[in-house]
Amino acid sequence: MIKKKSISENVLRRLPKYYRILQELEHENVKKISSTVISKMLNFTASQVRQDLSNFGEFGHQGYGYDVVYLKEQINNILGLNRIHNVIVVGGGRIGQALANYRGFKEEGFAVLAVFDIKTEGINVGEGIKVLKMSQLEAYLKQNYVEVCIIATQKEVAKDVADQVKALGIKAFWNFAPCDLSLGEDVVVENINMSESLFMLAYKYKNLNKE
Amino acid sequence: MIKKKSISENVLRRLPKYYRILQELEHENVKKISSTVISKMLNFTASQVRQDLSNFGEFGHQGYGYDVVYLKEQINNILGLNRIHNVIVVGGGRIGQALANYRGFKEEGFAVLAVFDIKTEGINVGEGIKVLKMSQLEAYLKQNYVEVCIIATQKEVAKDVADQVKALGIKAFWNFAPCDLSLGEDVVVENINMSESLFMLAYKYKNLNKE
Repeated sequence: MIKKKSISENVLRRLPKYYRILQELEHENVKKISSTVISKMLNFTASQVRQDLSNFGEFGHQGYGYDVVYLKEQINNILGLNRIHNVIVVGGGRIGQALANYRGFKEEGFAVLAVFDIKTEGINVGEGIKVLKMSQLEAYLKQNYVEVCIIATQKEVAKDVADQVKALGIKAFWNFAPCDLSLGEDVVVENINMSESLFMLAYKYKNLNKE
Repeated sequence: MIKKKSISENVLRRLPKYYRILQELEHENVKKISSTVISKMLNFTASQVRQDLSNFGEFGHQGYGYDVVYLKEQINNILGLNRIHNVIVVGGGRIGQALANYRGFKEEGFAVLAVFDIKTEGINVGEGIKVLKMSQLEAYLKQNYVEVCIIATQKEVAKDVADQVKALGIKAFWNFAPCDLSLGEDVVVENINMSESLFMLAYKYKNLNKE
């Protein structure tokens, strides 16, 4: 049904935005929504919305709009959010702890099982989340089905740690260390690069003041 | 010197990556660097590197390469990183605390002065960072020169809080709440959207497994 290779990265990057407003609409008990309303909520044009959503089949009906729950479920399926992914965090500093404790992830289908670090002292995480030593990682991954690893280490060790985790069979990495990780074709990586965003903010701010 | 309006957003988005590797090279005491080596470090093509950097004047010399410190300083100036920006954090949850305590920001010219929240109990931040109530924000901003506000609140209140801070004169917002903030033309906003990145990770992972 899904024309896989034909969906552009740009369209994909917008899908989570649609997903998020559909979640909100469902929460507010809205049943039907038009492309015009969606476009206003997202600051896209209505034709952009119709074009984006047409990539995924005919969800909308001229004059009727989109069924909120159905459309959300379709995007859910496309994004692969329709099940729980087990997650570990490597790096138990403040960023690692914040991520382990962030309640939003579970709502979106990502369950943090454990946090790993060289030392486990002083790492405070929520109930049900284990705090373990790196030396326990291999045994842990043999006993537990984990799909995603959050890298929350210092920049200097991020690549080594990720390679080590990859060698243990994990294929999805969400990287918060301030460096873009390249781990090869056989795994997927999403980098959250806070420094780069901060630099962009500085640049835009500098130019705002000039105008 | 800088042809301002002609620099594309895509080039700008890559500049922080150049900046980061130049920081590393400087740290390792490397004086000169060729576009070929830069391109390998960043997984860009060498001609892309030369084209990107040519936007900012003739920093390189054929056959000699780029002067690392000089090039870093130029990018520094372009991005507006050549001075300290004072920052406040609104929202003292784990993400807010992690951001307030992240030592990397100060190295990059961003100094967190204070964290604001409705209640101040249980908010632990580093030495020299104040923890204050939202009711003290207006008075604080009259007495302290602050340029950047980090929004680390819940999604539900992010827009209201940001509008309130904007009304008090702040013009740069770094948003970590899981919603894209639009605050008007007269301020700049960078959104760190973790949910969207997580959704992309799920999508890429799902399709990796299919192949």
